[in-house]
Parts: sequence; structure tokens; C-alpha cells
Amino acid sequence: MQEKSKMPDNARYGDDSPIAAFATSPGNSALTLIRCSGKGSIELFSSVFSSEKINDAPGNTVIHGWIVRNEKIDEVLVSVFRAPKSYTGEDSLDISCHGGFVSGKAVLDALKYSGFREALPGEFTFRAFLNGKIDLTRCESVMELVSAKTDTARSRAVSRLSGSLFAEIDEIKKLLVQVLSGAEIYLDYSEDEIGADDDEAEGKLPNLNAAINVLARLKKLASSWRTERLYQEGLTLVIAGCPNAGKSSLFNALLKEDRSIVTEIPGTTRDWIEAWVSIEGIPVRLVDTAGLRETSDSVEKIGVERSRKLLQDAELVLYLIDGAQGLTAADNEFISGNFKRLIIWNKADINPVPSGFKIADNRFISVSAKTGEGLSELYREIVSAINERAETDFHLHNGPASAALGSERQKNLVCSACDALEEAISLSRKNEPLDLIAPLLREAVNALGEITGEVSTSDILEDMFSRFCVGK
Amino acid sequence: MQEKSKMPDNARYGDDSPIAAFATSPGNSALTLIRCSGKGSIELFSSVFSSEKINDAPGNTVIHGWIVRNEKIDEVLVSVFRAPKSYTGEDSLDISCHGGFVSGKAVLDALKYSGFREALPGEFTFRAFLNGKIDLTRCESVMELVSAKTDTARSRAVSRLSGSLFAEIDEIKKLLVQVLSGAEIYLDYSEDEIGADDDEAEGKLPNLNAAINVLARLKKLASSWRTERLYQEGLTLVIAGCPNAGKSSLFNALLKEDRSIVTEIPGTTRDWIEAWVSIEGIPVRLVDTAGLRETSDSVEKIGVERSRKLLQDAELVLYLIDGAQGLTAADNEFISGNFKRLIIWNKADINPVPSGFKIADNRFISVSAKTGEGLSELYREIVSAINERAETDFHLHNGPASAALGSERQKNLVCSACDALEEAISLSRKNEPLDLIAPLLREAVNALGEITGEVSTSDILEDMFSRFCVGK
Repeated sequence: MQEKSKMPDNARYGDDSPIAAFATSPGNSALTLIRCSGKGSIELFSSVFSSEKINDAPGNTVIHGWIVRNEKIDEVLVSVFRAPKSYTGEDSLDISCHGGFVSGKAVLDALKYSGFREALPGEFTFRAFLNGKIDLTRCESVMELVSAKTDTARSRAVSRLSGSLFAEIDEIKKLLVQVLSGAEIYLDYSEDEIGADDDEAEGKLPNLNAAINVLARLKKLASSWRTERLYQEGLTLVIAGCPNAGKSSLFNALLKEDRSIVTEIPGTTRDWIEAWVSIEGIPVRLVDTAGLRETSDSVEKIGVERSRKLLQDAELVLYLIDGAQGLTAADNEFISGNFKRLIIWNKADINPVPSGFKIADNRFISVSAKTGEGLSELYREIVSAINERAETDFHLHNGPASAALGSERQKNLVCSACDALEEAISLSRKNEPLDLIAPLLREAVNALGEITGEVSTSDILEDMFSRFCVGK
Repeated sequence: MQEKSKMPDNARYGDDSPIAAFATSPGNSALTLIRCSGKGSIELFSSVFSSEKINDAPGNTVIHGWIVRNEKIDEVLVSVFRAPKSYTGEDSLDISCHGGFVSGKAVLDALKYSGFREALPGEFTFRAFLNGKIDLTRCESVMELVSAKTDTARSRAVSRLSGSLFAEIDEIKKLLVQVLSGAEIYLDYSEDEIGADDDEAEGKLPNLNAAINVLARLKKLASSWRTERLYQEGLTLVIAGCPNAGKSSLFNALLKEDRSIVTEIPGTTRDWIEAWVSIEGIPVRLVDTAGLRETSDSVEKIGVERSRKLLQDAELVLYLIDGAQGLTAADNEFISGNFKRLIIWNKADINPVPSGFKIADNRFISVSAKTGEGLSELYREIVSAINERAETDFHLHNGPASAALGSERQKNLVCSACDALEEAISLSRKNEPLDLIAPLLREAVNALGEITGEVSTSDILEDMFSRFCVGK
């Protein structure tokens, strides 16, 4: 897929020694999976394994046996993979042990005893990259998949895992390399082979239009990150309001309204209640501040402080007015504050909004968390606020972008490429010499090469020389 | 291993339809494992799998591919098992998906969409039992393994998984079946074939000594449960004492003292701090009550109530006296209470125990949680108290018993067998007729058969007829 890249100098990663690590979370589960990889890992493993079949096992086969140290440790199934046909490209083993908190640890201890070292974070995928099994965009998509909070986030990560981003970057880079090659040919041969009086020799890029098209494509790609990040990180929606305004009822009603509650994601234990919900595929952390103490008592100050911090950090506050009480001084104080909010008149079933009621210049929605009245409208308003948050380039229901960025790192590199290319185009328009322009183009190509992890210099040269005539 | 047993009438388990379930805990892990099993499961799976290789894949091989519904769901490795060479004895699949909270769920949804139903708890192991792959003692040992809290508990469960208990039960049962057969032969043939005037015809068991030996062996087995249960369930050790007596320091010192802290077992979030430690292989829940509010304030009553409940439920209370303060009224009040406890004079580095100091008739240990002075002695005292708790038949450092019980169910059945056998022996000694004794022996054999899950009636018959001469 790409050439072997050199290891960064400061990496502790990069050897091919036998490593082992848990691949699943410890828990009250039926099984625990331990992954092993590295040169000689199968031979090493056989020293703590009961079945000699393992030594001659072909790749992609499963062997049953016992992990044995001084006594039997666990009964396991071992999937054997032979280099290069494995995730890492090395000899590898997936060991399926019994679950729980103890068996897996005992097996890992036996593996360490036999000579495996514990793998560093991401080391298997790093090795997969080093061995040319996957490029860096796919490496990152693996992490995106694992930390996806909604099914849409998963789907978009899977698209990158399938190579959609790699393909787009690769295509853009090839176009850019053509632009660069054109310029470098002129640099090398302009004096003796090409007339000195044509446009190109004066500095203009031989293929300025191609460069401009590439820039547009890169900018489109860069702008995709805003939406993608929203799918990855989600946003926080806080329910606030006076005591008894019905905050918990609304919280529960919204959890019910949304059918794809991501209850599996554990919230940090705090003084408030929160749950992750998926709203149109965006992970939304829904926070009910009802648990926070709201008195003015000095002891309770911490609660008030926390509440304020929550409101400030929220992308949207659902502020509840207790319809049974009408607007209070505390409500007015909040509304005058500087929060991005939706104002909600609750308990409309008990007391509908009085005719002519206004809250300064704020819009508001009338609901009853109890009867469900107005909740669909509220949901639409929330979706529209999320939509707004993502600004112009975010369109819900658009489906996964064909190629979109998956990380801040990728986005920064695309922006670097854009900056360099933009300057190159600008210089070209000013008829500046090509030897000022070419390094900028090379910088842009290198930035794109960094995204996928390819070695950029050697393939620029390759591309350039491949367009030379044979024998020259 | 044993014959197919009939399904209990009320079971919802027992069909061979394709089932699927998570085999690992969801979490921020690299992988999630989903298990599938059942008739036609491989064909069914192929409808959501990208690689046609799956259809002809031999058993125990691993296939790479994508789960596909309308779009690509996840990139997976699938281990294929063909009946009867699988855990369940059916066609089975282990699907290794990407980890996290979403990918596995999406894959499981795709499987359900394709026709798998979600497996019931323990259904894979249940099918393994139904299909004669493992007996009930091994089934139970799988659960023991998964819930083991210490490495010793794991080791003892592994012994049962290896069949140590099955072998012992099986051997005892065979001996008992011989005793029973001997009696039943006399019952059937005594009138026409055997002289009516010998001992057996009058009622005495033909092999009373064998019965007595079996009883002793069963009683030994029954008594093993007390120790085994301790290894499985562990016990609670609570640190109590006045504020500032140094409870948290001792808690931390004991955690340090013990090098095999089982920190991975999550404690329920409560007002106190607790950690599971392994003391000589026994899982010990160490509770620091320092977090509990100790004032007499009415609001704090709940804290005091909880504290009392903790002390009552504890197998051992480490009661700390603040050596810097000496004995207080509160200390005396506690010491007069009815708790199993070790009394500890803490802060011996600041203020050693005054000469001639006594606490009623209680022994006490002098320590300094700060300097570590006396902690080894305290540890030995704790071990000895645990030892005492397990009473006469518990001997630390004895290593795993060669055959020991692994569950309350097994223990109850062994006790039933003992009771029936004991009564049979007693009747025999009173020369009661064999037709009163034989049913008791049959009851004992059935109880043992229930332990392993074998069909008991048919194999008693088999054993009996096999000792008849041929052609009769």
C-alpha cells in the first residue's frame, strides 16, 4: 500500500520483538482476548502451550489447548497467523482465554514469563503501518472506530478504514506531483533545452489551473473536519432551570424520545446525571443539573460553581421555566446571561403560555414534559441548533461524505498543504521565479505524504523521472 | 463424556437455532468478540459477510472480511468451527470486531437482522452440555473461572475444568453403583436362585464395607466446599476506629503490604473506600470506613447506620485505637460490642503501648501504619483469623485439593447422597430388608448423577446388566 517509512528517531516503538497485550476490556465476560505478535512469537508461545500442533500450524488456523506454566493456567483457543498474512504483517497469535479479571491476567503473566513483553499503546497497528499493511489514515480510523459514540460516527470511520480518505489524498497528491514535476523539469532543463522567452521560463507555473483545482479540492477536504469532529466528539446539552421546573422529567422524556440511547457509554460519576444520546448521528451528552444543589447556602457554593461551569461549557442550554409558577426573577437573571440556549415553557398542560407572553427578544417553546406535548417541536429545535453549531458546511441527512478527514492531525496537514499551495499560486500569478515556487509545492506534497505516512521525497523523484523519455 | 440428557420441561433453552452474543465486555478496547452458534449458522452468517470463502471454510480456520448490511459495518476476522468440533458441538463462529461501544453492537444488529437470535445467559455452555461436550461440573467451573477474584480461585476452578471433580464423582458413583447392583441382583433373584438363609437375603447389604468407604469419601468431598466457597466468595475485613486513629493509613499500608492487589475488580461506588486484596489466595474485601461520617448530627445518622451495618456484615473488624490519644470512651464502647475483631494500637512510633496496658480480656497488636512497625505481625494475625474462619478443614498453603466441590448445588447433592447412603448403611446394620435399602442407594446414585448431569437411571441398569452373564 505504501513504502516502508523510516521510524521517527524518538520512537520506542519499531522493533519486531514478541509483544503481547489484552485486546478486550477485563470484565464479567465469557472470554478475554490476548494478542501476540512479533518475530518468533509462535515458537515462544509454544513453550507455554500444551499442544505441539502449534509449531506446524498453518496461518489462519485455530488450535485448542492449555496454557501451562507449572500448572494448567487456562484452556484456550489460539488463532495462528503467519507473516506476512496477519494484521501486523508479523507472526501473530490471538488467544481466546476465559473471561473475568483473573484468567486473562494469569495467561498474560505466563506469556511475559515465557519472554513476551507487554505491547506499547497502539504498537500492533504501528507495526501494521511499518510493515506496509495499512497507511496512517487507516491507522487513525481504527482508533476512531474504537472510540465511536454513535453508529454514524462508526460508519464514517469505516469509510476511512476502507480507504476512502487514503484514495482521495493519494489522488490529490498525484495531481500535485504532476504540477511539481512540470515545474522541476523547467528548473532543471530550462536553460539548455527550453526557450527562455516563454511563460514558464519567466516563472509562471506550467500547470497553474491544475494547481488551482487541487487547492479547491484540498479546501473542501479541510472543511470536512468541522463536521467529522462533531460526529467524533459530540456536544454537550445541559438542562437548567429553577428547582421543580421539571428538569428531570424533561431529561427522561428526551431519553425516551430518542430511540438510540447510547447508554453503554459510562458517564463519569458526578453530582449531576448525564447520558449520551445520538441525535441524528451526533453524539450528544445530555446533562440534567437537577442533582446540583441550588441553594445560596455557603456550603453549597461548590454546587453553584459547578453548575455555572457546566452551563459555560455546554454547546446548548435547555432552560426550563416552571409554567406553573410563571417567569421568576431567577429566570430573568439566567435569560440575561450569555449562554447559547433554548428557552422552554414547561408544564403547559397545567398552565398554558399566557397570550401575549414575551421574554425580552427571545424565542421560546411551550412543552409539557409530562404529557409529551411540544416535545417533537423541541427535538426539531435541538436538531436545528446542532445544525447551526456545525455552521454552513454541515448538512444533516447528507450521508457520509465520500472522503472526509478523521483527525486534527490530518486537518493540520491539509491546511499546511493548502497554505503552501496558495502561496505557490500567488507567487506564480506574480510571475515570481519557479525556484521560489517549487519548494512550496514540494512542501504541500510532503504534507499530504505525511497524512498517509508515505515517504514523500522518493516518490516525487520517481514520478518526475518516469515522465522523462527512456534512455535519457 | 456423558449421554445426552433430556431438556428440563420448563427450559427456554435447548433448541439448536442460530444464536449470537457478545463474549467480551464492551469498553475502550481494541477488539470485541461476538460468538455465534447453531444449526445453519455459517450459511446464515455468510449473508452479511463479504467473503464467499466462508461457505467452504474448513473448521478451525480464520477468514478475513467485512460485515456488510446496506453498507460496510466493520472489518472482522471470523473463526469458523464445524460441528461437532466446536465448544457447543454445533457449527459456530467467533467474530473478532473492532472494540469500543458501537462497532460490536452494529455487528450484532446485522447478525440479528440476518436471522440470529440473541443467546440466553449461559446458552453456549448449555448447548455444549446438551451435545455431550462437557459435563455439569465443567459447566460450573467455567462460571467459576470467569468470576474468580484471585489466582488461587482460578487455579482451583481450572482443576475442575480439567475434570478433577468429574473424575472423583464418577469414581465414587461407580463404586456406589456396584453396591447397588449387588443389592438389586439379590432383590431380583434371591427367591429362586439364591439360598434364603444367607445374610444378604435377610437384608444386610452384600457389600457394606464398600458402602462405608464411599460414605467417607463423599463426606470428605462435602467438607471441601467450606474452603472452596471461601476462595470463591472471599470475606470482608473492615477497618474501624475513632476519627484520626489512622484508618486510611492502615488501609493503604495493607494494600502495599499485599503485593497481589486485585485492583481490577471495580467496587460499587459508596461512601467508603474499598479494595479487593488477595491474602493467601483468599479474596479479601478490605473496607476503610474513614469516608463514613461519624458525627452524631441527625443528618449524619445515615452514615452511622451504614457504618454499623458494615461492621455487622464483616467477617473481621480491624479496630484502631489512636495511640496518640490512648483509649477513649468511644473505643471502650466499641470493644464491648459483639464483633469479631482484632484490636490494634496504632501510632506506636509516637506513643508506644504503656507498660501493663490491658483492654478487658482482649489481645491487641501494636503497630505504626506510618513506619510499618508491627505490620507483618498484623498480617500474620489476619491470616490466622481467616484460617480460623474456615475452621478445622481449612489449611493454608495446602495447595489445591485434588478434588473439591465448586458450587452450592454440588454440595447439596453430595449431602443428599450422604444422607441417603448413611440411612442405607444404618438400615443394613439393623438387618432391614434390601427392598428398603436399595431405593436409598438409588437415590444416592441419582444425586451424584445429577452433579455431573448424566442420566442416572439408564446407566445403573447398564452397569447391573453388564455384570449378568451373557445370554441370560
